[in-house]
Amino acid sequence: MVLETIESPADVKALPADQIPLLAEELRAAIVAAVARVGGHLGSNLGVVELGIALHRTFDSPHDLLVWDTGHQAYVHKMLTGRREMFDTLRQAGGLSGYPSRTESPHDLVENSHASTALSWAFGVARAQQGLPVAERRRVVAVLGDGALTGGMAYEALNNLGHHQLPAIIVLNDNGRSYAETVSRLSERLADLRTDPRYRKVRGRFDRLLDRLPLMERLTDAGLEAVKAAVSEAPALQSFVEALGVRYLGPFDGHDVGKLEHALATAARLQTPVLVHVLTQKGKGYEPAETDPEKKLHDTSAFDIATGRSTGTKPRSWTQAFSEAVLELADEREDLIAITAAMPGSTGLLPLAQRHPDKLLDVGIAEQHAATAAAALAYAGRLPLFAVYSTFFSRAFDQANLDVGLHDAHVLFVFDRAGITGDDGPSHHGILDLSLALRIPTMTVLTPSCEQDLQALLGVAAGLEGPVTLRFPKGAAVEGTTIGVDTVDRGLGLAARRLREGDDVCVLAVGDRVGPALEAAELLAEAGHQAQVWDVRSVRPVDATMLDAAAAAPLVVTVENGVVGGGAGTELADRLTERAGVRAAPPVLKLGVPDGYLPHGKPDRILAELGLDAPGIAAATRKVLTDD
Amino acid sequence: MVLETIESPADVKALPADQIPLLAEELRAAIVAAVARVGGHLGSNLGVVELGIALHRTFDSPHDLLVWDTGHQAYVHKMLTGRREMFDTLRQAGGLSGYPSRTESPHDLVENSHASTALSWAFGVARAQQGLPVAERRRVVAVLGDGALTGGMAYEALNNLGHHQLPAIIVLNDNGRSYAETVSRLSERLADLRTDPRYRKVRGRFDRLLDRLPLMERLTDAGLEAVKAAVSEAPALQSFVEALGVRYLGPFDGHDVGKLEHALATAARLQTPVLVHVLTQKGKGYEPAETDPEKKLHDTSAFDIATGRSTGTKPRSWTQAFSEAVLELADEREDLIAITAAMPGSTGLLPLAQRHPDKLLDVGIAEQHAATAAAALAYAGRLPLFAVYSTFFSRAFDQANLDVGLHDAHVLFVFDRAGITGDDGPSHHGILDLSLALRIPTMTVLTPSCEQDLQALLGVAAGLEGPVTLRFPKGAAVEGTTIGVDTVDRGLGLAARRLREGDDVCVLAVGDRVGPALEAAELLAEAGHQAQVWDVRSVRPVDATMLDAAAAAPLVVTVENGVVGGGAGTELADRLTERAGVRAAPPVLKLGVPDGYLPHGKPDRILAELGLDAPGIAAATRKVLTDD
Repeated sequence: MVLETIESPADVKALPADQIPLLAEELRAAIVAAVARVGGHLGSNLGVVELGIALHRTFDSPHDLLVWDTGHQAYVHKMLTGRREMFDTLRQAGGLSGYPSRTESPHDLVENSHASTALSWAFGVARAQQGLPVAERRRVVAVLGDGALTGGMAYEALNNLGHHQLPAIIVLNDNGRSYAETVSRLSERLADLRTDPRYRKVRGRFDRLLDRLPLMERLTDAGLEAVKAAVSEAPALQSFVEALGVRYLGPFDGHDVGKLEHALATAARLQTPVLVHVLTQKGKGYEPAETDPEKKLHDTSAFDIATGRSTGTKPRSWTQAFSEAVLELADEREDLIAITAAMPGSTGLLPLAQRHPDKLLDVGIAEQHAATAAAALAYAGRLPLFAVYSTFFSRAFDQANLDVGLHDAHVLFVFDRAGITGDDGPSHHGILDLSLALRIPTMTVLTPSCEQDLQALLGVAAGLEGPVTLRFPKGAAVEGTTIGVDTVDRGLGLAARRLREGDDVCVLAVGDRVGPALEAAELLAEAGHQAQVWDVRSVRPVDATMLDAAAAAPLVVTVENGVVGGGAGTELADRLTERAGVRAAPPVLKLGVPDGYLPHGKPDRILAELGLDAPGIAAATRKVLTDD
Repeated sequence: MVLETIESPADVKALPADQIPLLAEELRAAIVAAVARVGGHLGSNLGVVELGIALHRTFDSPHDLLVWDTGHQAYVHKMLTGRREMFDTLRQAGGLSGYPSRTESPHDLVENSHASTALSWAFGVARAQQGLPVAERRRVVAVLGDGALTGGMAYEALNNLGHHQLPAIIVLNDNGRSYAETVSRLSERLADLRTDPRYRKVRGRFDRLLDRLPLMERLTDAGLEAVKAAVSEAPALQSFVEALGVRYLGPFDGHDVGKLEHALATAARLQTPVLVHVLTQKGKGYEPAETDPEKKLHDTSAFDIATGRSTGTKPRSWTQAFSEAVLELADEREDLIAITAAMPGSTGLLPLAQRHPDKLLDVGIAEQHAATAAAALAYAGRLPLFAVYSTFFSRAFDQANLDVGLHDAHVLFVFDRAGITGDDGPSHHGILDLSLALRIPTMTVLTPSCEQDLQALLGVAAGLEGPVTLRFPKGAAVEGTTIGVDTVDRGLGLAARRLREGDDVCVLAVGDRVGPALEAAELLAEAGHQAQVWDVRSVRPVDATMLDAAAAAPLVVTVENGVVGGGAGTELADRLTERAGVRAAPPVLKLGVPDGYLPHGKPDRILAELGLDAPGIAAATRKVLTDD
């Protein structure tokens, strides 16, 4: 085993070239084994095995800085930087993170796993070193996927790197598809410049041009323009980055370590901003991942190595429930258009796209543009529905506020993965959407507690005016019956539902916390406290009947799967105070996610640790009822 | 007077060509007169007189849609669409908005005045019309400044327009400078392609190349590359947009209505995404605005038409106080680097740039990149200070949270124009920064109440660890002495200050509301209520002594110049509850800006209407003390 001899990047550097294919093979086997056991990102990591080796043979991490955009492609980097033996703890609570982590290793720098940030990190470090002698500078390498280039902030950084001509090496890992088909003309790749038919066509055209044009013609503007038009069919990506002042090298075979080392060394010598275009194959070397059209092995749960099929049965998810609800909505609303920021599969929009290809709009990893385009679509008579992970809505807040909200545009924002998400660490928790959505004055804020109500509220939302958000968590969908409510339909409108009577405390439960709140009420009852429990359903507008009931209680408890600060509990408490009066309103205990960045772990475990499961809700309530 | 005959775009269309110069002249005079009287955006509007005329002669507004990016360049558009006579109410409460406004006119579409959104609006409308016969489609024209192209979301939209090949006309109004020197290689303009020396150089090189190369050489790869290199010095802007699949037309003289009409008509016929590059002169036709190196006449208060000099005396502003404080900080902190998103002048950073040119980094209108680059600069040992209008921080929230906050980077965010700003309407109020900053778990949140404390707290902030925000409002700086505190120094650290004793109510006043809160206490005393008043200074971490004092009061009132929901009052109330217990904590009246989009008007008047001046604070407090 070569891999066992690799304890640090120095060992990678010292490896004779003829051992590298073996190292690559062993790395692939180790990645497949680890992900098959615990789940994780497979395809992208298999694609960058040779690139990871080449980077560590060329640069001196951690003195030189390797920034992995989004971070889920850093498994090889982790294995080559002393963390190989920890891979059996991958994504387990207390174990190895699936993303770079500063507490894990000095070789890790950026923990943010939202896309398109790596170039700004590279820019900042390069700018800080401006004026230092070249020998003293730490080299900065940003590795990003082709999808990340569809994000606006990547462009902002490229523009700045080019303008300031700061030395930074940008490795574009082009596997021809990000989550979805990459949405950009820039992605039209030239697999091999010399053999590509388009290139040959250009060559041919150029040759014929020179033959045909009389000399004088060649010297006129028209001649110049003609030649320029002919030769301008060079890769769009090259024209694009060069227009911004960034050098372009490539494309290179991303599975040839020797060529990659040469390319990276060349790029490092330039002392300018340079983009190294590397072509890789996602899933390389593991057949089920190579042929994975639906990207099931992009971010996968545990699977069988022989077949690539998921092991264990997956319960029906909230995403599936939404997927079906949106299909129904599309049937009744001809004007519906669903928008995704490069995640049609993960957000459950593929069935819609299959039935109505014209009703899905994939804008790339461009949440800002998505929100504003949605406002415009609404203005022009469509019913836009932007399905997005809760955590990525933070990217579009300003546009949701000032393009959608200010214009009172009827746009539906559907937040998947709202609340604690777990495995993917601090930057993937969806805990901010309520606090952000409530800052948008015209926003209706809906929080279904079960899949039946998800469907009902989606239908209600479609019939409202102005902007609406609707959220549901990651994981297994909840049946209405499991929380004691077997019929939910649109007839309820935005009314809250009283699910349990009780005079000692009034619990206002939001979304997926309704179930735990009801269980908590049972626990409280065992201790002699009678809790009234409401399913809030609509945080804004809030049901006046519910507020009146709360105002009459000696204590109110709010529970939500999101940050406490400025979240649903704050909103409900503020409306309660407004209605009952500052001094007459009952005290409010607000339960939710406290301030802090939460490490990875299973969602249920994290929620329990935060006291947001039934025992936690009961204990916190009881404490106020008894000890306060 | 030609202008008096123009009641609608139809009149502009009907005007004989020989009358157009006269119309342009009269429009300029009317703009100068209006802005001289009441203030407003001058340079940009004088620059687009001919463009505005040409747009209305070519397109049929409001059937065709004109989207003005940022909106402050829409005065000509307003004058040509029936609002000429209202110009003497410009920017007055109840009068004409300085930005497009849907309630004012069917010719106005987008009210958001944050930059770089127009292309997404154009995309959305064009996408909604996909499949309609050409004759039935409304044409969409987005007009944006060259600065807007440095914003990432403009690129996201261009990328989508190019990918989908949707018909949209993008008019790039290139005046060679946005607020500041435009930060991009793309801005290297060719004033006139045929006479530009660079172009001639390229031509010359190309000619010599063809002469020198033997025929065979011309047909080799090397020859091709050489020719390509020579001709690729075409405008970077053209290569850039064409790489994205967007057609390029131009550049055109933006002060020649005939040529502009021809160009716009050509663009409209293409039925593809096309960028029309128009060169204009900011301030055109009014000498003091043409020669305005410091951009004083970009967004100006009332001035004397003969000289261009401001009339009336401007009191010393908060921005000036900050400007001096940052200069002092730069003297003691060698590692300081100030960052601006294209507004070095308006944020008070020009004196710093003059003394230390290497300590100012202008990233363009790219707040996302600015925040992440700041995190990287801090990582690499610098002390980054990002000075930004409060309202634009909304654009960088995700990056401030996950690049700065998650990495606990020592970045100082300085929010100018925090609170009600007034003249510029709903999208320029700076009311969200507290609510957003408090969602970032590691963020220290500072709110100086006077310029002496701005300086002291900036110094304290520089010595802290982790991210810090510090905010101050638009307008006249407040002296410490005027609020009864004549000495403030760094020795106070982050402690709150008790400015007044009283047992009936405890007022926790935030930032610029400290002065009004003290006055309110006097009003309350006249009515027999003794108010204790605190200057909070640091919302997070919050002073425990202050919390203890508040816990002992029968009523607590918080006052802030920002949204109530999730703002400083919520934070203080939550910490108070934590400390005193849910049931033992006193009731809290939270005063601040309510949910809603606020129209333009003078800040003091708006604050009074919202009950955030001294009488308002006193009245609200008294109501709870007596009637509740």
